[in-house]
Amino acid sequence: MKRRLPADVVAWHVWSMPRIDFWYEFASTYSYLAAMRIEPLAKAVGVEVRWRPFLLGPIFKAQGMETSPFNLYPLKGKNMWRDLERWSQTLKLPKFVSPKTFPAHPLAASRIALALDNAARPDFTRAVYCAEFTEGKDIADPATLTEVLKKLGHDPAVVAAKSGEQPVKDKLRANTEEALKLGIFGAPNFVPADGELFWGNDRLEQALAWAKKN
Amino acid sequence: MKRRLPADVVAWHVWSMPRIDFWYEFASTYSYLAAMRIEPLAKAVGVEVRWRPFLLGPIFKAQGMETSPFNLYPLKGKNMWRDLERWSQTLKLPKFVSPKTFPAHPLAASRIALALDNAARPDFTRAVYCAEFTEGKDIADPATLTEVLKKLGHDPAVVAAKSGEQPVKDKLRANTEEALKLGIFGAPNFVPADGELFWGNDRLEQALAWAKKN
Repeated sequence: MKRRLPADVVAWHVWSMPRIDFWYEFASTYSYLAAMRIEPLAKAVGVEVRWRPFLLGPIFKAQGMETSPFNLYPLKGKNMWRDLERWSQTLKLPKFVSPKTFPAHPLAASRIALALDNAARPDFTRAVYCAEFTEGKDIADPATLTEVLKKLGHDPAVVAAKSGEQPVKDKLRANTEEALKLGIFGAPNFVPADGELFWGNDRLEQALAWAKKN
Repeated sequence: MKRRLPADVVAWHVWSMPRIDFWYEFASTYSYLAAMRIEPLAKAVGVEVRWRPFLLGPIFKAQGMETSPFNLYPLKGKNMWRDLERWSQTLKLPKFVSPKTFPAHPLAASRIALALDNAARPDFTRAVYCAEFTEGKDIADPATLTEVLKKLGHDPAVVAAKSGEQPVKDKLRANTEEALKLGIFGAPNFVPADGELFWGNDRLEQALAWAKKN
């Protein structure tokens, strides 16, 4: 006979688990790396992850930037593309492919991610990133997103319709506004429950340790 | 009886050791962290380190920046100061102190570092960084540098005189020009013998592994 914990004990356990908000942007290369890494690392230390897509456009604008710093500062950009190639090898990810347009327009993917429920969001997010950065596909193209949704067993028409509804639009706007309030200036970010801001894929481990300790 | 290797065998061994150039700037906070970390890590994997100070001023100017990106983008700056506090705790360094002027004027310290020989440069560099980032001292103040030199057993007057000579000035200019040619756009950087550029304190381990493998 399999013993099961009473529902209220399970609920208490989940409630008491350290938590981290993973703030990511669909055009962000380092968010891609973090998305591919975060789940096993968080599981290993017992930290719950909330996947929170937001838009970098307004965040960059608020700092006086009309596009990604990787475009504004070409040497910094060149280094980033090379760094992603190296990281992809180190992490044994598929060969890294630079998308034709950078940064890609993340609106449609972000809204779909929020139209899906919390449990479905991680797989969708990773699949979009892989289409973008390992197949070089345009994630602003509805065909790309339709294909991703189909492969994951969703009904693309249903999800696309829901992603255009006002509550989903509002959720994305609220996420981006919350990101601004948190002092977020780039992506990805990891924010434990106490609000400490960890910026960059390189800080994932530190952020998880912080969430665990605090 | 202690056995010693013949001098030519020792020379061959040093010559054949993998090598890394550590490009650092005296005003750079993340160069400070790298300077405190690099020696034991490099020794552990058998990589020789060449300490190469350069100036970020001309590097930033070439990218259209009149000061540090941490000043140009205040949220990025705020995150950096906090990140340094956290890193200092993690690495068990003394409590991190933000200097009154940032970025500090690095010219005098850089020239002294190059006036000293290769063997004396690492200790001087670390001592300057500690004065700057753990005591909040102004490294452009000759008194700060004099004190550092004295503590390390150098004759400050002799070293200061040498640091003002043309060959030393030329060496610093040549370093900065070489940094520009390498595609360097910030600090610190780690460059193995094959010229692969690793930017940022976070890439130290990857760069050492690369130097070892290539």
